[in-house]
Amino acid sequence: MKPVLSLDMENPLEFIDKYGSFQHVKIGHSVAIYGKSVLEEFQKRNLKVIVDLKFVDIPSTVARSIKAWDHECVEGFTVHSACGIDSIRAALESTDKLIFVVLKLTSLTGDLAEYLDLIKSLRILGCSFVLPGKWAVQLRKQIPGKILVPGVRIKRGADDQKDVVHLSEIMNVADYAVLGREIYKSPDPAKAMDEVRRMLNA
Amino acid sequence: MKPVLSLDMENPLEFIDKYGSFQHVKIGHSVAIYGKSVLEEFQKRNLKVIVDLKFVDIPSTVARSIKAWDHECVEGFTVHSACGIDSIRAALESTDKLIFVVLKLTSLTGDLAEYLDLIKSLRILGCSFVLPGKWAVQLRKQIPGKILVPGVRIKRGADDQKDVVHLSEIMNVADYAVLGREIYKSPDPAKAMDEVRRMLNA
Repeated sequence: MKPVLSLDMENPLEFIDKYGSFQHVKIGHSVAIYGKSVLEEFQKRNLKVIVDLKFVDIPSTVARSIKAWDHECVEGFTVHSACGIDSIRAALESTDKLIFVVLKLTSLTGDLAEYLDLIKSLRILGCSFVLPGKWAVQLRKQIPGKILVPGVRIKRGADDQKDVVHLSEIMNVADYAVLGREIYKSPDPAKAMDEVRRMLNA
Repeated sequence: MKPVLSLDMENPLEFIDKYGSFQHVKIGHSVAIYGKSVLEEFQKRNLKVIVDLKFVDIPSTVARSIKAWDHECVEGFTVHSACGIDSIRAALESTDKLIFVVLKLTSLTGDLAEYLDLIKSLRILGCSFVLPGKWAVQLRKQIPGKILVPGVRIKRGADDQKDVVHLSEIMNVADYAVLGREIYKSPDPAKAMDEVRRMLNA
């Protein structure tokens, strides 16, 4: 399992240069506002980027958006399932990078059963998934693609992500585990990242 | 009704400097890759921008994304309803600009009846809407907020937007009518825009 550092802090590059980073980082709009050229900075630092802009649009626009943001350092893109199967197919055809489909945001309630048909149609397309940790555990065997779990915690806590899980719960389940606040709000972020690395190698 | 030029062409600034523009433009990811600083260019040209990145995320992230992209020249942002009511509330609280909620992409089929409850809960929040033209016509009287209609045509045609409408059909219905390909693929884009202005003033 690869730990992914969510770059939601102020001045992410400054943070990385000061405290280091996991090899994988996840960027959203707070990084996107620097434009595509910021990807060069990640490339220079040998980091792999998951572009988490949750594209949700008509097929031609989703494909164009992915092509627009594509770059050597990008490992994958997130796309929201509300765009429909045709748009997800267009996403997969537009790049050889991973397409992580978001089924349900962690802030929303929702029963896994409601999503099973959608998951069935999506997994045969060859996409990867963004899944709440508990769903990842239940679905692992049925999903040939990669699974990214957001909102992973190393300590227990609560915020607006209802489905947070502890790292240990998804150890042999997720391919990517996204960690954020607990790292960058830690008094010693470098040590917090070391702790994660230790937990993963244990 | 305000015509909005969808900036999906290559080199949008070059296009604008050559052929002019409506006062309102809509930008997506193909412009976002230039970073937030590109908004200065629109500001300089006295253009008003609709940031059409269809934010769809947990409440704190939607609010952060909007604040990240906010700028004097921005007239509004699009948010996809799949993010849920709490995220839309967070969007409205994060800015004094318009929040246009996308209910259903024009590439998807879907019955208006399925969306009526959602529309009811959203309109009391004070948001604006992105609506397929035919829905805009049916819903106009029930929606106090602004309505933006994408995929508006001046000639008849078909592509991956299933719900395209003709400008004349939404004349007293939409607040914003988005036009794109027909303008920038026209042999004479300046003339095509003039035609639209004439139709609107007739």
